[in-house]
Amino acid sequence: MEERTIHMELCSSRKQKPESSQLEFGKVFTDHMFIMDYSDELGWHDPRIVPYQPLSIDPSAMVFHYGQSVFEGLKAYITPEGDAQLFRPEKNFHRLNRSNQRLCIPPIDEEFGIKAIQQLIALEKDWIPTAEGTSLYIRPFIISTEPYLGVAPSRHYKFIVILSPVGAYYKEGINPIKIAVENQYVRTVVGGTGEAKTGGNYASSLKAQEDVAKKGFAQVLWLDGVERKYIEEVGSMNVFFKINGEVVTPALNGSILEGVTRNSVNQLLKHWNIPVEERAISMEEVYEAYKNGTLEEAFGAGTAAVISPIGQLAWNDEDLVINNGETGDLSKRLYDTLTGIQYGRRDDPFGWVVKVDDSNIHLKASV
Amino acid sequence: MEERTIHMELCSSRKQKPESSQLEFGKVFTDHMFIMDYSDELGWHDPRIVPYQPLSIDPSAMVFHYGQSVFEGLKAYITPEGDAQLFRPEKNFHRLNRSNQRLCIPPIDEEFGIKAIQQLIALEKDWIPTAEGTSLYIRPFIISTEPYLGVAPSRHYKFIVILSPVGAYYKEGINPIKIAVENQYVRTVVGGTGEAKTGGNYASSLKAQEDVAKKGFAQVLWLDGVERKYIEEVGSMNVFFKINGEVVTPALNGSILEGVTRNSVNQLLKHWNIPVEERAISMEEVYEAYKNGTLEEAFGAGTAAVISPIGQLAWNDEDLVINNGETGDLSKRLYDTLTGIQYGRRDDPFGWVVKVDDSNIHLKASV
Ligand SMILES: Cc1ncc(COP(=O)(O)O)c(C=O)c1O
Ligand SMILES: Cc1ncc(COP(=O)(O)O)c(C=O)c1O
Repeated sequence: MEERTIHMELCSSRKQKPESSQLEFGKVFTDHMFIMDYSDELGWHDPRIVPYQPLSIDPSAMVFHYGQSVFEGLKAYITPEGDAQLFRPEKNFHRLNRSNQRLCIPPIDEEFGIKAIQQLIALEKDWIPTAEGTSLYIRPFIISTEPYLGVAPSRHYKFIVILSPVGAYYKEGINPIKIAVENQYVRTVVGGTGEAKTGGNYASSLKAQEDVAKKGFAQVLWLDGVERKYIEEVGSMNVFFKINGEVVTPALNGSILEGVTRNSVNQLLKHWNIPVEERAISMEEVYEAYKNGTLEEAFGAGTAAVISPIGQLAWNDEDLVINNGETGDLSKRLYDTLTGIQYGRRDDPFGWVVKVDDSNIHLKASV
Repeated sequence: MEERTIHMELCSSRKQKPESSQLEFGKVFTDHMFIMDYSDELGWHDPRIVPYQPLSIDPSAMVFHYGQSVFEGLKAYITPEGDAQLFRPEKNFHRLNRSNQRLCIPPIDEEFGIKAIQQLIALEKDWIPTAEGTSLYIRPFIISTEPYLGVAPSRHYKFIVILSPVGAYYKEGINPIKIAVENQYVRTVVGGTGEAKTGGNYASSLKAQEDVAKKGFAQVLWLDGVERKYIEEVGSMNVFFKINGEVVTPALNGSILEGVTRNSVNQLLKHWNIPVEERAISMEEVYEAYKNGTLEEAFGAGTAAVISPIGQLAWNDEDLVINNGETGDLSKRLYDTLTGIQYGRRDDPFGWVVKVDDSNIHLKASV
């Protein structure tokens, strides 16, 4: 693609950065953000880095009414050498475009998107926290902004990237979480938008999430919307079960999100010669394994929490306590390996990390 | 509830109103809008009418990421006597609160909501077009505005009402439309958000809609997400079939929207002693009726188009031409009766219309 210059407008004063120990997920944002506009006439145009600021959007903009939006989530990490690096960002941009396709949003240039993120991260590098388990969360998203109430794909969009320094996603850290199997509500169904990272999937999950939170559970485990039988995923994680030495994770059937962490876990397991299968797995099967003592571990896998061991799984009136409610060896090994690679403390045999190159960044400040 | 005053800030100059003949759906908005804010501390507060203007919203606001939003759609009509009136607005506010409940949004006071709309309409009365088939479309909606990226119900919201003078929804007017049965995509599923009027349901419909539009169809007919067999609804209408003198419409099973027009059609049919059943109806049953010559009429029913006769229904490789592709007698009678009541040209035996009372409106203009 043609070389595009990212116009830069820098803010005059920098915000105070929060203490590493005070960091929560997604509450504080850095000094700048990236924006690019789309119109049918100009395509994606006017890429720019500007001070973090409110958006001015017409109340009739489609995103407010018909939910035409997509997003991604990835992180930037600081290595022991003080470099900033990303973990498999090409996967996120590839998924973004698949989400775009499902939501009738025009694709963005994946390479350019990664370049834009690199430039933004280079500028905001001081915002990447360095304490254990902390990182800079990167949220690219696209919203439909055409001021029109007809139900049809928008002809105007904004692609935006905002950054937020984050601590551990779960207050419990790598400690096991309690999860409840959801029988009443459904997240999505094959033929719907489950494969896409779009707002509606998350909106539809809030009620179930709120209901189980009252009972002390961290998340729900979704079952499929057709038979209400097969396991799909956890709130914002894919899910894995270790049964009798073998690992099973639900296959990509069209209604679950293809996680970058899921893919990395699968690759690591194969690399370690641990058998792993992607296939349909029912809650009955997990329960059977639990009953006969072969359910060894269960864990969620996602960018925010990396690996979350599932210590307890509530299903109807049963409480499945897995691995005595403790973090299993495999969960631990995966967590250590993944975070080791992400933070540059370990070798990266798969070529997963992408260094943020700040050498060729031309800060064309207009302020 | 306590008396709440709606603060008014009037715009200094009024916009030019479009020609009645030029009106499209949802492209032009009036001079003012209604806004009210919600916070956990204050509840719904600061109701105000202000000049129509862009919203200033943080890029991390939840509506942009997790689609937590709901909306409604109703119309204001001008009677032959020059009065403004609404059609069953209490139904819309009741549905809004049911949508709110599903989406974890705090309920709004239904009576106050109707009062707010009345006040806004009274102020914008000149914007209600008077030509045949035209009206003022009213779009109440709620968006989640908390600047936070955690997946959880927002703690800040905005309830907004905007108004748009509209012509007929379909360019074809009351003429029959061509519809295609959707086999690949699914709008939603029982346990999902289908009963709620929330953005995600519409976002997920865009792709199917776009695909069939290319083949010359106005809308898709959705099938259920579980068996892909039972008829649900059309894009933004509920659907009715007249088979052998009896009318059938899909029952409210949890995944279709409970339309105000649907409810009104059901009441009219009963009033007229025309048998009407709310039950599951499969596409096979409709096809069988078509084959044996008992499928007399099919039509969609919704606020935007009132009654839309379905002249042609494409299913797999079959093209069902219904009633010779012409508007059926029942469709016509329903359309005439409903619009007659809505526009105040006919008696209103059910007490459906609500006059907009502008006598007790105190314009506390701050400009
Ligand atoms: C619904 C859902 N499933 C799974 C995941 C895990 O995907 P990834 O590993 O790419 O973060 C996420 C989130 O990020 C998610 O939102
Ligand atoms: C999905 C859907 N179904 C049905 C309807 C019809 O409902 P109503 O008659 O209240 O307009 C609408 C829209 O308004 C809709 O969006």
